[in-house]
Amino acid sequence: MTTVAATALSGVIPPVCTPLTSDFEVDVPSLERLVDFLIDSGVSGLFALGSTSEVAFLPDAQRRTVLETIVRHAAGRVPVIAGIIDMTTLRVIEHAKVAAEAGVDALVATAPFYTRTHPVEIEDHFRRVAAATSLPLYAYDVPVSVHSRLDAAMLLRLGAEGVLAGLKDSTGDDNGLRCLLVARDDAGLAQFRVFTGSELTVDSAYRMGVDGVVPGLGNVDPAGYVRIAQLCTDGKWDEARLEQERLLRLFDLVNAAPADRMGRGSSALGAFKTGLHLRGVIASPLAAPPQIPLNEAETAHVRTRLEAAGLL
Amino acid sequence: MTTVAATALSGVIPPVCTPLTSDFEVDVPSLERLVDFLIDSGVSGLFALGSTSEVAFLPDAQRRTVLETIVRHAAGRVPVIAGIIDMTTLRVIEHAKVAAEAGVDALVATAPFYTRTHPVEIEDHFRRVAAATSLPLYAYDVPVSVHSRLDAAMLLRLGAEGVLAGLKDSTGDDNGLRCLLVARDDAGLAQFRVFTGSELTVDSAYRMGVDGVVPGLGNVDPAGYVRIAQLCTDGKWDEARLEQERLLRLFDLVNAAPADRMGRGSSALGAFKTGLHLRGVIASPLAAPPQIPLNEAETAHVRTRLEAAGLL
Amino acid sequence: MTTVAATALSGVIPPVCTPLTSDFEVDVPSLERLVDFLIDSGVSGLFALGSTSEVAFLPDAQRRTVLETIVRHAAGRVPVIAGIIDMTTLRVIEHAKVAAEAGVDALVATAPFYTRTHPVEIEDHFRRVAAATSLPLYAYDVPVSVHSRLDAAMLLRLGAEGVLAGLKDSTGDDNGLRCLLVARDDAGLAQFRVFTGSELTVDSAYRMGVDGVVPGLGNVDPAGYVRIAQLCTDGKWDEARLEQERLLRLFDLVNAAPADRMGRGSSALGAFKTGLHLRGVIASPLAAPPQIPLNEAETAHVRTRLEAAGLL
Amino acid sequence: MTTVAATALSGVIPPVCTPLTSDFEVDVPSLERLVDFLIDSGVSGLFALGSTSEVAFLPDAQRRTVLETIVRHAAGRVPVIAGIIDMTTLRVIEHAKVAAEAGVDALVATAPFYTRTHPVEIEDHFRRVAAATSLPLYAYDVPVSVHSRLDAAMLLRLGAEGVLAGLKDSTGDDNGLRCLLVARDDAGLAQFRVFTGSELTVDSAYRMGVDGVVPGLGNVDPAGYVRIAQLCTDGKWDEARLEQERLLRLFDLVNAAPADRMGRGSSALGAFKTGLHLRGVIASPLAAPPQIPLNEAETAHVRTRLEAAGLL
Repeated sequence: MTTVAATALSGVIPPVCTPLTSDFEVDVPSLERLVDFLIDSGVSGLFALGSTSEVAFLPDAQRRTVLETIVRHAAGRVPVIAGIIDMTTLRVIEHAKVAAEAGVDALVATAPFYTRTHPVEIEDHFRRVAAATSLPLYAYDVPVSVHSRLDAAMLLRLGAEGVLAGLKDSTGDDNGLRCLLVARDDAGLAQFRVFTGSELTVDSAYRMGVDGVVPGLGNVDPAGYVRIAQLCTDGKWDEARLEQERLLRLFDLVNAAPADRMGRGSSALGAFKTGLHLRGVIASPLAAPPQIPLNEAETAHVRTRLEAAGLL
Repeated sequence: MTTVAATALSGVIPPVCTPLTSDFEVDVPSLERLVDFLIDSGVSGLFALGSTSEVAFLPDAQRRTVLETIVRHAAGRVPVIAGIIDMTTLRVIEHAKVAAEAGVDALVATAPFYTRTHPVEIEDHFRRVAAATSLPLYAYDVPVSVHSRLDAAMLLRLGAEGVLAGLKDSTGDDNGLRCLLVARDDAGLAQFRVFTGSELTVDSAYRMGVDGVVPGLGNVDPAGYVRIAQLCTDGKWDEARLEQERLLRLFDLVNAAPADRMGRGSSALGAFKTGLHLRGVIASPLAAPPQIPLNEAETAHVRTRLEAAGLL
Repeated sequence: MTTVAATALSGVIPPVCTPLTSDFEVDVPSLERLVDFLIDSGVSGLFALGSTSEVAFLPDAQRRTVLETIVRHAAGRVPVIAGIIDMTTLRVIEHAKVAAEAGVDALVATAPFYTRTHPVEIEDHFRRVAAATSLPLYAYDVPVSVHSRLDAAMLLRLGAEGVLAGLKDSTGDDNGLRCLLVARDDAGLAQFRVFTGSELTVDSAYRMGVDGVVPGLGNVDPAGYVRIAQLCTDGKWDEARLEQERLLRLFDLVNAAPADRMGRGSSALGAFKTGLHLRGVIASPLAAPPQIPLNEAETAHVRTRLEAAGLL
Repeated sequence: MTTVAATALSGVIPPVCTPLTSDFEVDVPSLERLVDFLIDSGVSGLFALGSTSEVAFLPDAQRRTVLETIVRHAAGRVPVIAGIIDMTTLRVIEHAKVAAEAGVDALVATAPFYTRTHPVEIEDHFRRVAAATSLPLYAYDVPVSVHSRLDAAMLLRLGAEGVLAGLKDSTGDDNGLRCLLVARDDAGLAQFRVFTGSELTVDSAYRMGVDGVVPGLGNVDPAGYVRIAQLCTDGKWDEARLEQERLLRLFDLVNAAPADRMGRGSSALGAFKTGLHLRGVIASPLAAPPQIPLNEAETAHVRTRLEAAGLL
């Protein structure tokens, strides 16, 4: 639980799934097993309450339980970063306080959403959130959820001023990511840490200069992501590519359910949790409502992908 | 506080602005004055914690204060409807419980947001929220905020089953609104109440068959909206048009600030609150962060529009 | 073929469908019958080569044949307005020249598309197109096709300068339409003619001050649209509403095909042409590729709607 | 001009800019110089009438002149691929015929645009276009222009059937690109050639398995793109990264003009043509209307970037 570690994060930091009981409470024993599973696989940190953690689905009490469980059970083995995802500044600051009380090492916030926002307001938002906490603050660029983009110049300005410690990039826009990375390096801002949220371009992202990866699929195969990150760090690019392509084929488990049965979010998250369930890590694949549970055929699709990836 | 009234709502139900103090607490005396101002102007109900109420900006404690203040101060003179706006089902249900405890008469919920959702999930969402409360539940179709649309057939199906009491339509799509209204009438579902959220087409919407209007601008000129609703009810369409056009010219106050200074949400909400401040109803025009306050020139723009509309 | 008429257009101006032969040539006899059918029903003008005319699907030779056929066969009975729809300025100007040679009375152009455009460029585009022709030029605001909106202030500026003769509004945004109409009237620009492209809110649009309507469904039931326009002009609003609701129910024919079978454009256009075929006006319902033809069940859906509307 | 070459394309195939005279005719001598400049720099082919060629801005006569000039002047030194960009099938087929007459080696077509389209229609579109020509046909996935995406399974199905020879991917979505490439290789479809349209991730794309790159910036610095493609082919990844980062910094010339002066398309294309003008290749940087010309300060911005990249 060192702030030093949290301000120099790198490597694989999976967004930790939130196992649930049948009445949608946090399944604490399963979450503890998941924390061990991830740390034992060699991850560098744990991102609690990210999108893949169903942060948007969890009431505040469950959010608090998640943070307290992960911090307590990680017990300083790796830093814990907490998503403080909410619509606007004052609500985000409330989550920041809860997360700090729970003992996390760093925070992750998005731009405002639901409201129609503006670059000037987004910058002010990050400044206010950072001013309200002593923890390092990471920006989370996730247009599929918040429907706006973070401006690269703004990010680096806030990085240079010490307002932001870094970025989780879930834009899927590797051109933009690379422009940011080159601009960061040209500005001598190596302390501004950049993570890709893409499961499928880890080797590319490392070649561009990212500090690490935050892969949702890293719940199901953390060892794979630890392996590819190490191969990238060691400059073994051909092996990294092969590992990435194995993970890409595994990623197809997110297409378990057809588009007329449920949303892509339900299908992906259901597949991750089903994967964890089939691998014996969590007790139930249940996701929070109104997500649709995978049926038998969809579960079989996940199993097939796990087997092909050598995970069952 | 009669459920009967809340299930047969009609007329003008403004989304009540939330006056704030300089430290972003609810300014209770100002909110009480605003409640009186609106009721004295003849509105049919009060919509607390709507988008114009800055629901997305208020922490839960402030949300609760707003509901308790409005319910207590309205004191049964008109029904109070509460927005229970949050990302997904379980969080929305928590707000529903708080609102019920505060004594509101009906609830308003959107589709899930932040998460990628799906029609099947949206329908399940409304069913679960309705099942968790004994209060009438209205759906709120506001794609500019939630980035999805509500399906008309789904709405009427839930209306027929008693899951939904009605709809607030803030789509700006009068073609879709009319299709819904004709389908509703063809299905004999008059009990499914439909309100337009558009400030600028009240007379058109009434001619199409809506039951009422939820106008953000109705904070600034509630008497104007009560007047136009009455003219529509009385079939005085030419006078209604003139009143609507007066209100449309007043509505230009939302363009107080230029687009490079702030978002359109900040400009509009800042203008509404400035209007209420200039009219002496609330103590301060301050809006919650990260919204940008109107400057002197922008405030003068609002004043000019109020004067032209005969409101100062 | 009087320019005077074309600069003071009003009433019902349907976008004329383009009947095709089995090898996708213009079916001239069918087109002539359609011209007669529309004029005999009392329309005020003919809009050739609009979106409903499949302008995006017709090669230039077929476009020219359409214009020559309609101008020749209309023979001055009503003005003919030609869509000059293409991606950017120089291409649009080429179409303008062909249309002028064909003897049309006015032109209709959209903003640039395919390219990423900008308000400054859109304004320059209209200025250049207008400068290249002596015919009146109407702007066509159709964001579903061109993926940008026309700015109201720009439209009125070009109207005041005589660059634009008016607007066809196919935005579906009746709030924006009303703001434009009030601004137009406040500026004393009655010569700037405004038409709605919406089939479902004709009475509303007339109450807001439009000069007329350009209804795709007006191919199938031109008499209905002529009737509602006359009722609006006569101030018989209750009868207008009933007529509009009848047309709205008829409009459901556009939902003939399910969303997994074809696009909404194919379904709507196929339904219009099937309606014209079933009413005996055109020889074949065929639409240009890659639109999908309606199958037997979908054709039956159209027939049912025609029968319910009293058109078969 | 060998079809064999065109069906096994690889390497750098820049979308050739179209130099214009002051009256917007094709500047043939400048275009010939540009063809020589590109071929002498070592490019593998020439993509005429792509988006960067202003295909959306050129009337058909100019399009034809471009093709005839490039085919004649390339004189078989490298294959020439022609964009046949238009709204829908029949119009695209007309362009295909003109291009075949001009002697090009392959064709490039997008999905339908302007019209609302559908996956079933897009597939039928490519089948019909391919059936109407004996030239190899490449699909062009460019959602920023056509506002729809091409489905990977559809692309590979058409590739396996010989309908499509390959893809130009301008989606900016490297996750999707990689899924396509892995699926292609898993299906043993190496003959389905895949090119990235991104200027900034050439090395990443090569590592993922693309066959080449179609860089707009390749007009200004073709030698740079030839160099990076060779480095990638030779597996010299570290040098490739440095070259890519040099090109990325050069790419900043597209930001010459501020967003309130012109669109991003005008700024980028104006910068490319200004670059070619400053490098002495073409006589004038003029672009077709309604694009806005760069002013003196914006031209200086381009010059600075060229100097920094060692190109002046």
